[in-house]
Amino acid sequence: MTKTTAGTSATTTEPRIALLGLGAMGTAFARAWLAAGYPLTVWNRTPSRAEPLAAEGAEVAATAAEAAASARLVVTCLLDDASVGGALEGADLSGKDLVDVTTGTPAQARARAEWARERGARFLSGGIMAIPPMVGVPEAGGYVFYSGPAGVFEEHRAALEVPVGARHAGEDAGLASLQDVALLSAMNGMFAGVAHAFALVRHEDVSLREFAVLLSDWLASMAHAGVPAMAGHLESGDYTEGVVSNLAMQVEGNATLLRTAEEQGVSTELLTPYTDLMARRLADGHREEDGTGVIDLLAVPRR
Amino acid sequence: MTKTTAGTSATTTEPRIALLGLGAMGTAFARAWLAAGYPLTVWNRTPSRAEPLAAEGAEVAATAAEAAASARLVVTCLLDDASVGGALEGADLSGKDLVDVTTGTPAQARARAEWARERGARFLSGGIMAIPPMVGVPEAGGYVFYSGPAGVFEEHRAALEVPVGARHAGEDAGLASLQDVALLSAMNGMFAGVAHAFALVRHEDVSLREFAVLLSDWLASMAHAGVPAMAGHLESGDYTEGVVSNLAMQVEGNATLLRTAEEQGVSTELLTPYTDLMARRLADGHREEDGTGVIDLLAVPRR
Repeated sequence: MTKTTAGTSATTTEPRIALLGLGAMGTAFARAWLAAGYPLTVWNRTPSRAEPLAAEGAEVAATAAEAAASARLVVTCLLDDASVGGALEGADLSGKDLVDVTTGTPAQARARAEWARERGARFLSGGIMAIPPMVGVPEAGGYVFYSGPAGVFEEHRAALEVPVGARHAGEDAGLASLQDVALLSAMNGMFAGVAHAFALVRHEDVSLREFAVLLSDWLASMAHAGVPAMAGHLESGDYTEGVVSNLAMQVEGNATLLRTAEEQGVSTELLTPYTDLMARRLADGHREEDGTGVIDLLAVPRR
Repeated sequence: MTKTTAGTSATTTEPRIALLGLGAMGTAFARAWLAAGYPLTVWNRTPSRAEPLAAEGAEVAATAAEAAASARLVVTCLLDDASVGGALEGADLSGKDLVDVTTGTPAQARARAEWARERGARFLSGGIMAIPPMVGVPEAGGYVFYSGPAGVFEEHRAALEVPVGARHAGEDAGLASLQDVALLSAMNGMFAGVAHAFALVRHEDVSLREFAVLLSDWLASMAHAGVPAMAGHLESGDYTEGVVSNLAMQVEGNATLLRTAEEQGVSTELLTPYTDLMARRLADGHREEDGTGVIDLLAVPRR
């Protein structure tokens, strides 16, 4: 292990953290922990990425197993779930608390939790709702969903809250990546709509920067009005409660959206999957609902 | 014309407005103008809808032509564009200012502007970014895009600002409905994403109401961060400027979104049109861009 003398770790009372994986996100987490006075051991498959952190006070481990041996709290921020299993294959994880913020699916997180349990480690899975420039910038509002035992989360909460905010997302290890993926999926839908909107106006006599302000304000206000209403509908099972613009009116309005796209020479491919589902729900006899019923149509029967 | 004595129109100095069409939105506009002291003449194809407004001070015209004859400013809020032509077929519009807030496409608005010009009327087309409960409630933030001659808009701005806010959207009559449709299309995309997100989590141990707060906050903050950035990219033509999470990383992340949907038994039909376009743009060699390049792929070659 390369011992460095830089940093304040000699006098700190914070517990050591071992961090495996120094991509853009791992490096940002490392810097945040160093800045907050946490003794830190880092490891990366390509060792050169650790050099700047060594200069900032991190100890650099030669192997992932050596890094893991140096601290009770072991954080993995690797390329994918398989990399986590690969890097820690020969490591002794007994008595460790493994916190895996590597991107993955809920099923991967659940399997990794079981894998950790078999090796004597407690396990939290993380889903990061931030990009690297938001790390260490509390006002940027980023956070990580952590799922797994609440007691483990509470024990390490102070350390976990250093890079960005930390939220406990449930005892089931899969719930952090599930909610992470759900938020990212919704964002993808929003940007699909935004792409369509820009395609409609880009060649017209419209200031795109002014339009962008109107568009982002509009989406924010519709999200805050509509999303909690849909949650209420799902919880009550009554999708008609408080509906002003009902499905029949919305489907009628969709015809204008599709016709305008055709007039403007813009493909309707990003619009039609949703408008088709709305039309299908209306045809099923749900004219007084809002759009919540579309959610029912997305369930794929289990084989 | 049915003369009524209710209301304050006898002492007002505001100019009379003629309003054709008393659906939910037309009725809300009528009430807002009456409350603000504007003398108002109303007409509706089904006369019974005018009765409550007569009791509140409106004059009720027997025909659309009679209503139009009563005021310089004639506002139409009808079922569709064809209804506007039909209702005003025999009316004398010479010297009138016709403001049409009926839902329609940009091409319909442009054709209606030409139709009005041929009849000696000046013309504004409106696109309403509000639902009826937002009318007369300034803090609800609703507004109408109006396009057409700026002078006509300025002349009637005081009256037009009464029901909800009013924004001039350009001289081209089509630009109000174009921006209206663009905002609504983007909103549809967002709610498609929201539907997918709820489908992922609805049967898990997640509080849907708490999730809804996280989701709407997330969408609002991503809209405010991402939409102006895309406008800047479109204006500069450089889609790589300031990009942190590039297209290559996003496409890699999309695989996790799609795999999670499959794990959770949720159809990917609302996700794949956008993820396919992102993958196509990446395959075209644009790995350092953000998602802006998808907009280029939406252009349908003109026949």
